[in-house]
Amino acid sequence: MAIAIPTSEELLQAHKAIAPYVHNTAVLRSKTLNEMSGASLFFKCENFQRMGAFKMRGATNAILALSANERERGVVTHSSGNFGQAVALAAKELGVPAYVVMPENAPDVKKAAVKGYGATVTECESTIHAREGAAATIQEETGATPLHPSNSMDVIVGNATAAMELLSEQPNLDVLCAPVGGGGLLAGTALAGRFFGKNCKTFGGEPQEVDDAYRSFHSGIIETNSSTNTIADGLRTHLGDQNFPIIQQHVEDIICVSEAQIITAMKLIWERMKLVVEPSSAVALAAILKNKEQFKDAQVGIIISGGNVTLSKLPFS
Amino acid sequence: MAIAIPTSEELLQAHKAIAPYVHNTAVLRSKTLNEMSGASLFFKCENFQRMGAFKMRGATNAILALSANERERGVVTHSSGNFGQAVALAAKELGVPAYVVMPENAPDVKKAAVKGYGATVTECESTIHAREGAAATIQEETGATPLHPSNSMDVIVGNATAAMELLSEQPNLDVLCAPVGGGGLLAGTALAGRFFGKNCKTFGGEPQEVDDAYRSFHSGIIETNSSTNTIADGLRTHLGDQNFPIIQQHVEDIICVSEAQIITAMKLIWERMKLVVEPSSAVALAAILKNKEQFKDAQVGIIISGGNVTLSKLPFS
Repeated sequence: MAIAIPTSEELLQAHKAIAPYVHNTAVLRSKTLNEMSGASLFFKCENFQRMGAFKMRGATNAILALSANERERGVVTHSSGNFGQAVALAAKELGVPAYVVMPENAPDVKKAAVKGYGATVTECESTIHAREGAAATIQEETGATPLHPSNSMDVIVGNATAAMELLSEQPNLDVLCAPVGGGGLLAGTALAGRFFGKNCKTFGGEPQEVDDAYRSFHSGIIETNSSTNTIADGLRTHLGDQNFPIIQQHVEDIICVSEAQIITAMKLIWERMKLVVEPSSAVALAAILKNKEQFKDAQVGIIISGGNVTLSKLPFS
Repeated sequence: MAIAIPTSEELLQAHKAIAPYVHNTAVLRSKTLNEMSGASLFFKCENFQRMGAFKMRGATNAILALSANERERGVVTHSSGNFGQAVALAAKELGVPAYVVMPENAPDVKKAAVKGYGATVTECESTIHAREGAAATIQEETGATPLHPSNSMDVIVGNATAAMELLSEQPNLDVLCAPVGGGGLLAGTALAGRFFGKNCKTFGGEPQEVDDAYRSFHSGIIETNSSTNTIADGLRTHLGDQNFPIIQQHVEDIICVSEAQIITAMKLIWERMKLVVEPSSAVALAAILKNKEQFKDAQVGIIISGGNVTLSKLPFS
């Protein structure tokens, strides 16, 4: 069944709707990184976003799309990462009950953050089966609406607002580049580029170790990964039926990078730009640096997706 | 002998003169840190400054103040930290030869940075005697003008421009707070607060372990430290005869903080604001958090002095 791809009007409405709840984050530049890449780089700093990642945008938009009745019953998601925090904070802001299923081995600091935003946390075994089962039980018991972190049109449209803001500041970007994991950020970014850019092309950056999106893009069917062996812990998931058609139609290409390239790019952002970013965020810069001949002299917008890292466990030696 | 304290006109001229060579750095905020402090905080992000610290401002202004003849002969300084890099970069921008004396045990990455900006590096033993001796020899041989990192009126006036920019964005600040080591940043900040604020009071933050400025402020004579046992490696020096009178006249108080308070504040800035800052930068926030009753409901400008850290040696466990 063909999906209905969102319109530019829907993106504009979403941006207006979520604006009171999210930051219009800063766009930063770096002379050194411009010199190193041979391009003119504009970094959209979603690490400065509320709860530390772009996920706040999609979560807020998805909850705003619910009916009054649905809002009363609440929302449920399962997440070991940023989306759980995003749903918890967005739900709190909108006065909606939130239920977040987290694997029992998730870091205490993440569980504390989700609880701190007032969500009800249910712990389960660290398998996708246990997580989905726990979420389904909650959905049955409470009538809460399940929210998917990336394969939902409301989430995709919410995520698109980061690139919309970047393009409204820098309307002449030739290229947009975002990391791709579940595909929700890349699909939203590509829609923004298509609707609000001037012949602006969107690229995805993906870890070579979990190159499912690259393979899907070229095979035409949604592929999965046999391992999740990447430092970019936000990018271990695969595409979904909502975002894949958008990626197929509106993304130019997906560029795969090695673990060493990800760590090098992350270190550059920390040392040269003085920004705390998570490994997933560095994947987009790594992709541009890897293919720098392709982007020579271009104006390139890079979505820095988030900054939630454990400071005691950094990959710098 | 009474010193001539710079006028507001001199500060305005300096700002205009250095503007082509320095960044007007971003001012960032944090809802969480506002809640924690009970104040309204505005962070002037000099970690985003060129070469990663406010020192670029003072170094540029000091070199611009030289005659054509002096510029031709060059400048010399001794530094194991940010000032050496600042002099090297500012001199490069202005086409002036720079000689930087560095202790032989300074990190290779710092020596490489100074050399990368085109300065001539002379290595010496890691004692103040050896450093001053090596600088004096270069001065004699080349006729280069010695530049002091903090006890020079041109450096103080250049440093003042950070707070001037902050006040031009936020004219109603009640308080400015900057870290104090050699005193050049605090003196400049206090002048900016006096000339361009509306009854804005300037406070210094200082590590308890090297509380020479606090003791000097209260005794009326320049005191020194018997040890340098603080993580805030930029603040181990003492005040000088140029900046001390300004600090005495225009600073409200100096607040001393423990090493634990510095590390806590640094971790807050990294985790909550996603900024890479050096320990010295965290001292100002630590001071505000320590005395939060005093700053309740105030609009507080905090100078984030720099972001040059060795990522493999962080104090987070």
